[in-house]
Order: sequence, then structure tokens, then C-alpha cells
Amino acid sequence: MNIVVQNIERADPVIIKALGECGVATVHEAQGRKGLLASYMRPIFRGASVAASAVTILAPPCDNWMVHVAIEQVQKGDVLVLAVTSPSDAGYFGDLLATSMQARGGVGLIIDAGVRDIRDLQEMNFPVWSKAICAEGTVKETLGSVNTPVVCAGELVNPGDIIVADDDGVCVVRRDEAQDVLKKSQARNALEEEKRQRLASGELGLDMYNMRQRLAEKGLKYV
Amino acid sequence: MNIVVQNIERADPVIIKALGECGVATVHEAQGRKGLLASYMRPIFRGASVAASAVTILAPPCDNWMVHVAIEQVQKGDVLVLAVTSPSDAGYFGDLLATSMQARGGVGLIIDAGVRDIRDLQEMNFPVWSKAICAEGTVKETLGSVNTPVVCAGELVNPGDIIVADDDGVCVVRRDEAQDVLKKSQARNALEEEKRQRLASGELGLDMYNMRQRLAEKGLKYV
Amino acid sequence: MNIVVQNIERADPVIIKALGECGVATVHEAQGRKGLLASYMRPIFRGASVAASAVTILAPPCDNWMVHVAIEQVQKGDVLVLAVTSPSDAGYFGDLLATSMQARGGVGLIIDAGVRDIRDLQEMNFPVWSKAICAEGTVKETLGSVNTPVVCAGELVNPGDIIVADDDGVCVVRRDEAQDVLKKSQARNALEEEKRQRLASGELGLDMYNMRQRLAEKGLKYV
Amino acid sequence: MNIVVQNIERADPVIIKALGECGVATVHEAQGRKGLLASYMRPIFRGASVAASAVTILAPPCDNWMVHVAIEQVQKGDVLVLAVTSPSDAGYFGDLLATSMQARGGVGLIIDAGVRDIRDLQEMNFPVWSKAICAEGTVKETLGSVNTPVVCAGELVNPGDIIVADDDGVCVVRRDEAQDVLKKSQARNALEEEKRQRLASGELGLDMYNMRQRLAEKGLKYV
Amino acid sequence: MNIVVQNIERADPVIIKALGECGVATVHEAQGRKGLLASYMRPIFRGASVAASAVTILAPPCDNWMVHVAIEQVQKGDVLVLAVTSPSDAGYFGDLLATSMQARGGVGLIIDAGVRDIRDLQEMNFPVWSKAICAEGTVKETLGSVNTPVVCAGELVNPGDIIVADDDGVCVVRRDEAQDVLKKSQARNALEEEKRQRLASGELGLDMYNMRQRLAEKGLKYV
Amino acid sequence: MNIVVQNIERADPVIIKALGECGVATVHEAQGRKGLLASYMRPIFRGASVAASAVTILAPPCDNWMVHVAIEQVQKGDVLVLAVTSPSDAGYFGDLLATSMQARGGVGLIIDAGVRDIRDLQEMNFPVWSKAICAEGTVKETLGSVNTPVVCAGELVNPGDIIVADDDGVCVVRRDEAQDVLKKSQARNALEEEKRQRLASGELGLDMYNMRQRLAEKGLKYV
Repeated sequence: MNIVVQNIERADPVIIKALGECGVATVHEAQGRKGLLASYMRPIFRGASVAASAVTILAPPCDNWMVHVAIEQVQKGDVLVLAVTSPSDAGYFGDLLATSMQARGGVGLIIDAGVRDIRDLQEMNFPVWSKAICAEGTVKETLGSVNTPVVCAGELVNPGDIIVADDDGVCVVRRDEAQDVLKKSQARNALEEEKRQRLASGELGLDMYNMRQRLAEKGLKYV
Repeated sequence: MNIVVQNIERADPVIIKALGECGVATVHEAQGRKGLLASYMRPIFRGASVAASAVTILAPPCDNWMVHVAIEQVQKGDVLVLAVTSPSDAGYFGDLLATSMQARGGVGLIIDAGVRDIRDLQEMNFPVWSKAICAEGTVKETLGSVNTPVVCAGELVNPGDIIVADDDGVCVVRRDEAQDVLKKSQARNALEEEKRQRLASGELGLDMYNMRQRLAEKGLKYV
Repeated sequence: MNIVVQNIERADPVIIKALGECGVATVHEAQGRKGLLASYMRPIFRGASVAASAVTILAPPCDNWMVHVAIEQVQKGDVLVLAVTSPSDAGYFGDLLATSMQARGGVGLIIDAGVRDIRDLQEMNFPVWSKAICAEGTVKETLGSVNTPVVCAGELVNPGDIIVADDDGVCVVRRDEAQDVLKKSQARNALEEEKRQRLASGELGLDMYNMRQRLAEKGLKYV
Repeated sequence: MNIVVQNIERADPVIIKALGECGVATVHEAQGRKGLLASYMRPIFRGASVAASAVTILAPPCDNWMVHVAIEQVQKGDVLVLAVTSPSDAGYFGDLLATSMQARGGVGLIIDAGVRDIRDLQEMNFPVWSKAICAEGTVKETLGSVNTPVVCAGELVNPGDIIVADDDGVCVVRRDEAQDVLKKSQARNALEEEKRQRLASGELGLDMYNMRQRLAEKGLKYV
Repeated sequence: MNIVVQNIERADPVIIKALGECGVATVHEAQGRKGLLASYMRPIFRGASVAASAVTILAPPCDNWMVHVAIEQVQKGDVLVLAVTSPSDAGYFGDLLATSMQARGGVGLIIDAGVRDIRDLQEMNFPVWSKAICAEGTVKETLGSVNTPVVCAGELVNPGDIIVADDDGVCVVRRDEAQDVLKKSQARNALEEEKRQRLASGELGLDMYNMRQRLAEKGLKYV
Repeated sequence: MNIVVQNIERADPVIIKALGECGVATVHEAQGRKGLLASYMRPIFRGASVAASAVTILAPPCDNWMVHVAIEQVQKGDVLVLAVTSPSDAGYFGDLLATSMQARGGVGLIIDAGVRDIRDLQEMNFPVWSKAICAEGTVKETLGSVNTPVVCAGELVNPGDIIVADDDGVCVVRRDEAQDVLKKSQARNALEEEKRQRLASGELGLDMYNMRQRLAEKGLKYV
């Protein structure tokens, strides 16, 4: 049952871009605190961010054959999301595959495994969020699938879902919820700016959020 | 039994500042190799250092309500130290709370849990030593306490204890031992400078510390 | 049975240097995907690389006495490789020992334990690959050995073996295989450059490596 | 978006029972090596096995309110499958909830978190596969959902999917694939019995599976 | 600053025994969900339970010298609680030390490190809750302290505090709170018995605890 | 370079058996506290012990092909020791392979990876020390080697080395040191019996080992 789904639907690029501008923490909050990949997924270099449609890969342990298959399915602006059938820290991806990705217009990689050639990847400005950095190579022996739903770092990712990733981590947004999540994210951001100014002026969160009475009711004692 | 202790004693700011200049490794050695928090506590960005009086927080898992309560207790130069009642990697703290901390004169955060908005925190130059970086938000449902003794990353921290933190980790110094620890730290540093010069000139530690005889007595054989 | 082996053989410095230029990932591949230390061994700062002969240390937990003994055995261009008899994250090595190493011509440290004074080490440009960063000090009470075969981070390292380390991790090459591994590494690099250009021009790995038929034979379905 | 789905479809009890008799390892193999929960999910006592329809729970960290909600949805022969929105080792479940489960006909619990009162649970013969054993209690403050698809220990579980669990771990079978998986599992078991007898008589796997030629072709050398 | 405190106060043996009968989960709940050691502390065999006054040890890594010192301080019915100054899995304790403990009337060991000879310990019915099982031996080189406050598995334990341990884990009760905690524990147990019977008869927790209205108010939807 | 070494030397069976009677902790101590595999290697059931000559396997991740190859090399009384080229928790070994092992006279398995069918293995009384229990199957695609030196759970094991394993863990003894280690182990055991009786009679280790003066010299204070 190893398949490659060739035609996947993607969300509106305008929405995708706008979600990226909101950032992971805001998007995650705005969609009801769901969709966050496990916090062990870290960027290989700081300061990068990505918002893109997911092309998904389900790969065997220590075998990166399906990455080659997936790159053919990548369209301009897509991100690869690689999940494994069994845990592995091996380095599935390096500078050659990144070169191929960039030639196809791919913008990044989310991988629940390892990556290598990280100095080259940083110089190429090709961002990766991974579980490990590991020079160990992989084989090309066993099939997996491309563009099927996968569980990556504890979260379900469907092909065409939107990935938002930055220094705080990686979040997935369902394609059909993207517009709604964007609206809520932007509303949240607007509110945050106002809050930031009030807090910067010295106002306490206790007062700004009217917390004192509820704290007292719950039984908090000042001594 | 959820309380907020409002008046805590703090050490002399001159001593605190001087301890910070000695650095974590030196202070830790000078006080007899005690007081070091677990090595999983890492700075969210390199090059920062903090020396400050601890305002302590005991917080429930995934609930940052007490952070708001604690910030009211922060005085100029204080650092927050957050311990949890149950392990959590959630992001208790982000750029809004950092804005509020800086408005109150707070200088940093030590947190045995997660933190988010780390790019903003770096731009604000607000240093954090944490167990995790995680975009996951928290709730405001359950009480904890502020300024009670807590166990943070395996070490007891009392309110008003001095926290010294840099790229090497985080160390706690008891308030009533601070002056003595400072004296020993400075003595140690003076000695280190002389040792550094001798080692830089090519002298061996084996000779500088007179180790050869003791090694032979213990039975070390050269072959 | 605590010994210091004083005369170890080293590989040709020209070969060592050339291996370093190939990088960890390439060398590891070229020697048949062996010799890689566990991926938890990370550089304390990015951008450094080392290729050097190993002076090995087997040390007790939380005891860095043998590091002093080992430095006397270091020759210009050597790297220390420290393994422990029982797991420890303590900081065995800091700026004083690095000063001594540099005075002897030593170029780095691979340590399956902790290191401290990392800001100083970065300023001195003394690279370290370690399991942990930890300010905790060590004692000088128990003997170990120097220049005996050790298992460091899961890999056997003999004294005089060649260590190649960069941002991707740490790899060991047997002294008597070095020349052959270098030849294969350089051949591999030459090939990679050509592949990089073809991939950059948009050619797919699927075509460049002739994978399509083998994928079909294994049963991959496009839908 | 916190919901309780009240009517879920279940597989044929005859098929469920038969799958349980095949065991986790066989079922997992028979369905193409998929569906296995992470290996950190261990039984709290040895020798138990379960095959049952999943009633799923998505619960907040350290909050077991939804377990009470879920038990009302349990029918005779069901198993609870609890996933968390954020990692937690807290003890969500103990002897009182097990009593309630058994009164409703529930047969076990799969929980990506902690459990307590394990001596009682063993005496009641109520099997649990969990990530942790932990006496820490939970609150009842925040909603989750019941009978929605969840990711538990890295695997997607839909309400009504079949859970097979024994000393080897936990496997999930899709409801609509159950009959086919059962057929393949039983075929596999029949074959295994024959193989077992041949191996017991001293025949080698190398010969029974005709491996020698393929090993030689791949380049294995006997020396 | 290595000391042995010889005279410590202990709680009333009647209270200690009664706390033990309540069990860890109940005591932990009754004292407001505090005092629980980290869940990685597991019994080396199932079915044992201990309630006893703590004689505390602060020990260096891989050095069990202080255990000998502590045993002299043990009185009939005491339990040893060993914390380490740096993480270690080494086997600090085996059948000889257990023999000595039993000769002094000691009833068990709580150790944030490793233990060995576990088959012998089980045959002697000497219960241990530990972080690891490890045959690795220790040295007798470096001092620690006995009967000072220690942080063991993340929790502060004072000499004379009461330890309650069973298959669910380990909990510490402050000596001056013991009587109050016992009263609350017993009240809780009485209540649990009644609840157990109602749940066993098929009543739902939803009804027994009157949860339905609050769930609806929070927004739970049945579909 | 995938090879199978067919003729390996083994130690005297009388010595092997006698080492097994001494137990892991004693043998480990007697040979100078070396040779112990990492403490994460745990028996799949309690009460088993093994002393045997090692037939070693170096296997790729998630690929158990080499186990079949190795079983042909097993002689009566041998134990398999499996190391991996990349970390894996997959279940390389189950009841069929155990049947084949027992038919060849093999007595156990040490595996730095996963094992399955553990209920069957326990019923067959086939002991295994493993890193994980995991139902996940493996493939037969990639070669490894048999009877070459391997690093298993952090320790070097040569073919023909002696493995001693019991509830405390796993220890390796070099073939050419076996006789000497046995002598020291037996001497140690004789001494332990005398110590046990003295400690059982109430004598303190402090007195039996004459520790009091050395403790005082190091500065221990009784208060």
C-alpha cells in the first residue's frame, strides 16, 4: 500500500503568507491551542520562519528514498513534512536534497528524524526543523508513501495542510480552517499590541485582566 | 494553602553585582560545589548573564496565572524563578510578560518549564534560562504560590536567594552566605589569573599543582 | 591497571588535514557508514571544525584528574577524546585546561560528559563537542588511563585514530584506513559537485539516479 | 470546540475477539507493520491482554474530567484510549474510575500519561497500558473531547477503531480493515506454527527461508 | 561543611504506621497534592510498602561512603533517603548494606541513584525505590552529609520527615503536618469506600459528583 | 565489508559456568569495575541468569537478517549479542528465533534494541536483556556482520568474550582474563559471606572497615 498522491489541494497563498506573519505562538493560540508539534522539533538555525503547504512523506527508518519521490510533487512555496514508521535520528536530508528542493521552489523541511550538512543548509538559507542533527546516512531500499496523512512529532498532518514554523516551533493548520484561524490570529495580534503598550507603561496584568477578584475567590492569601 | 509573601529580604545589590561578575562556574566552586540547577536549564540565547534576587513562583502544570501575581512583587533588579508542581514543557512566558517584567525593572527568568516568543525576547534582551522552548500556551485556572521556597530544576531556591546565571548554567547562593561566597569567588578568580598565565606559557598542570607524586602513589604507570 | 601510554603512532598530517576538508558526513559515508559518535555529541559553538589525532582518556565520573595527565601527552595538532567509566554530565574541562591545551598545540576536545566556561572557550576559539554544558566541577581523586582504547559516545576510539568533527557531529577514522578513506571521500566530493549542479538546474534525483524503474518494481503506485 | 460524540460504530465483536487471540505482534505484521503505538506504552502488570473498541478521550494536561464524561459512552467490551493535548505523567486514573469502568462493562485503558492505584488495579484485573505510573492527582477544570480522532503515543486512533494490547505493546486496527487484517493474521499464525516445528527440529532460518543465495549476492563473505 | 546530625526528631510511630495504611495516592491528595517524588522513582519489586522516618544522605556521585555513616544513625523503623550532588545511576547499595540495615531495624531505602543485588534484596524482603538498577560499584573517597535537608528526586526531604512509599511511588510528609495529613487521609479513605460502592453499582461519576451542569456551562456539546 | 567469522575461540565452559555463579555485581567488581553494559539493558523477565560465550552481531536499524546468519554460528551454550549501527527499538527477535536458538543450544540474547513475543519467551524460559520491548517488526534487506568486535550498550564485546547477565544487568569478561577474574570473584564472594555475618550480627560497616579515622581526617563533623 505504498502510494504517491499527485494532486493535492492547497490553501490560498495569500492566507498562507498572512498566517506566517502571525507567527507560531499566535496561530496556535488562535486555533484553540491545537496543532503544535512536539517541542523537541527545533530549527537547525535561528531566525528562520516558514509558512507553506505540506507535502507529506511517510518514510521507513534510516531510508530516505521517498524524499526523492516527494520532491517531484513539490510546487513553488511548498514545505516537506517527513514522518517515520519507526523512530530514527539518521540524517535523511542534506545539501544535495536542499539544492533540489530550492530548484523546485520548495522552502523548507519539517522532519521527525535527523538532518545533516547543516552549515551548508544555513548558508543556502534553507530552514529545517528537526528532531536531531546527525551525519549518519540513509539507504534507499524500502518504500513509503507521499502525500498521505501522517503523524509527525505527535501531530496529524494532511497533505495540503498549512505549516507555520519559526523559532518557537512548528504548528499545523487544517486547510479548511485556515481562513478562520487567520482572522482570529490577526485579531489576537491587534489586541496584543494594545496590551503590550499598557504593560510597557507599568500597568500590571493583574489589573489589565481584572484578575484580583477571581484570585481572591479561589482563595489566594497575601501575607 | 496558596499564598503570596509580599515582603522578602534581599541581599546587598553591590554583592549581587559582584557575584555576577565572577560567573556561575566560579561561584559554584567557591561555595563548595553546591547550588547548581540541573544542566538541562539552558539560556534561550547566548551571551547573556544575570545576577539578581529571586522572586519565586510555584505553578501548576500548564498554568501561568501565578506569573501575573508574581510580577507585582518584583522590584528593580529581581529575577523570577518558576518551579512547577508537575513536569511541563508548556510556554508559560512570552513577550507580553517580558514587557511587563521590564517595566517593573525585572531582569530575567529562570523557569523549569517552557518559554515562547524567543525571537522577541532576544530582541528585547530579556534573558531566560529554561527547560524547553515551546509555543504551547497555558491556562489561568489554578492557584500556586509566590515567594515560598521552591525546588527548581533539582535545587532549593528561597525567595531573596541570589541567582547567578550565564552561558554555563544557573547557580543559587543563599542570602546569608552571599558575602562569604563572594570573597571566596574573588580569591579564586585572582588565583585563576595567575594559573592561566603559567599554563599559557606551557607549564603543565601536573607540575603547577604538584600532582606527579600523588599519581605515582595511587599507582599510575607510564608505559 | 591505570596506565599512560606515552608513544602512540599518528597518521600523516597531510591526510588528516585533507580528511577534515571533506567533512564529517562525507567521511562517514566514504568509510561505509561507520565510525560516527552518537548524535547527542554537539559542538559548544557553531562553525568550528577539527581533524586531528586522538589522545584518549578514560576517566572516572566527576573526576578530571586524567585530563591533566593527558595534556602532557598532547602533541601539536592533537585532539583529546574523553570517555567515562560511568555516565556523568559534570564539567570536566574549562578555560584553564583549554589554555594549557593551546599552549601545547592541542586543537580541541571530544568529551562524553560536560564542559564549562563555554563563553571563554568560544572567545579562545577552542572547539569542544560534548554531551552536556554544565558548570559543575570535578574532583581529582581517582585514576583512569590515557592512550588506551576507549568507547566514547558509543564508538571505539584508539589512540592515534583520526577524529573529524564539525557542525554535523564527530566521526572516527582508523589510522590504517585513513588513506583509503580519504581517497573515497575525495572521490565522493567530486561526484557531489556534479550532482549539485544537475539538481540546481532542476533535474530530479528520481531521474539523475534512475530510480523510477526500481520504485515501480517495488510496487510504488502513483494515484 | 469541545464535543462528545455519542454514537460511534463498532466492529463485529467476533472479529475483535479473534484479533485479540492473534496477539499484537502478529496483527501488527499482518496489517503491513502499521498501527503500533510507541514502545514506551507498557502494561502496569504482565500477562493481561485486551481486544476492544476504542472510546477515545482528548484530555488537557493533569486534568481527568473527560474520563468521567467518557465512561458514560462506554459499552460492554470497550476500552478507553486517552490522549493528551500536552505531555503529562500525572495519574489520571485509579481504582475508583476502574470500578466505574467495570460496572459499565469496560475492559481496559490505554493512556498516554500516568495511572495510579496500580496494586488495586491488578487485584481487580483491570489492565492498563500507560506511559507512566504516578501517584500525582489531577484536576477537573478544563474541557476536552470524547470520541473524536486522537493521536495517542504517536498513532492516530479513531473512535470505534479496534485496540489490541498485550505484553508486547498496543496496536490499533481500523474498523473497516478489521476483517481483512484478521484473515491475514490467522494465515500468518498458521504459517508460524509450521515454521516453529521446523526450527525446533534444528532446521536453520537460512535454509527454511532460502536466504543463502541472496546473502551471497549482496556480498556477505564467510571467513 | 560535611556534617552528621545525630539527634533528629521523629514523628509518632502510630501516626507513621497509619499514614502507611492510607497509601501514597491518598496521602498525596490529602496534603494538597504536594510532596510526591518524581515518577521515575520505582520499586525494585512489586507489592512492598513502607512508612517510616527519613534518615537523609547527601552523597557524591558514584560514592557510597556516607551510606555507612548513615546506617549508624538509623533507629528501628527508619528509612534511608539518599540524594546525590550530581546525577548518577551507579549501584550505591546492595545485599551487604541491606543486611546491615535490617540488623539495625531499618526498613527500606529511597535512592535517587542506582541499586544492585536486587534478587537478594527481594529475597530479604528489603524494599527499595530507586532511579535505576545498576551493577556498577561505587568508591569511598569523598564526604557528604547525613541528616541534613536534601532534594531527592525533585522534592525536599528533611531528616525526620515521614516517607510513605508503595507501588504508586514515594511521598514525603512534613513531621509537623503528619497528624493533620493523617486525619485528612483517613477522611478521604472513608469517603472513597462509599464512592466505590456507588460506582460499582453502576452510578456514573457525572451524576455522583454533579458534573453535568458545570460541563454544560463550560461549553461541552454532545453530538 | 560484511563478514561472518566462522571459527571463534571460546573460554573453558567450567570457567564460564563458575563466573555465572558469582553474579554480575561480583564479577564486575572483581575485574576492576569495568565491562558493564549500560544500565538501560534490562531483563524481559526476572530471575533469569546467563553465563555464556558471545556470538556477536552488528545489525542495521530495523533489520534482523543477520540474526538468522548468526544462529548458524551458535554452539551449545552460546549467547547472541546484537549491536546496531544506528539506534533502534524495533523488535528484532521473537519466539520463532528463540525456538531456533534453543534447537541449536543457544541460551539467551543480549540486544541493544527491541524484542517481542515476550510472554512466549518467558514460557520458553529463553532470557533476553534488551533496551526495549517492542512489537514492531523488522526487514531483511541490508547486510551486517557476525562475530566481529561490536560496541553493545556502550561496551566493547569481542566474539568469544564471556557474557554474565542477571537481574542486576549485563557484564562482559575478556576471554583471556576470565580465569583471573574468576579467581578474584570467588575470593570476593568468600569475603562477602564473612562480612554478611558480621553485619547481620549488628556490627557497623564503620567499624568493620575501620572508617572512622579516615572520615575524621577528611573533616566529617558529628553535631
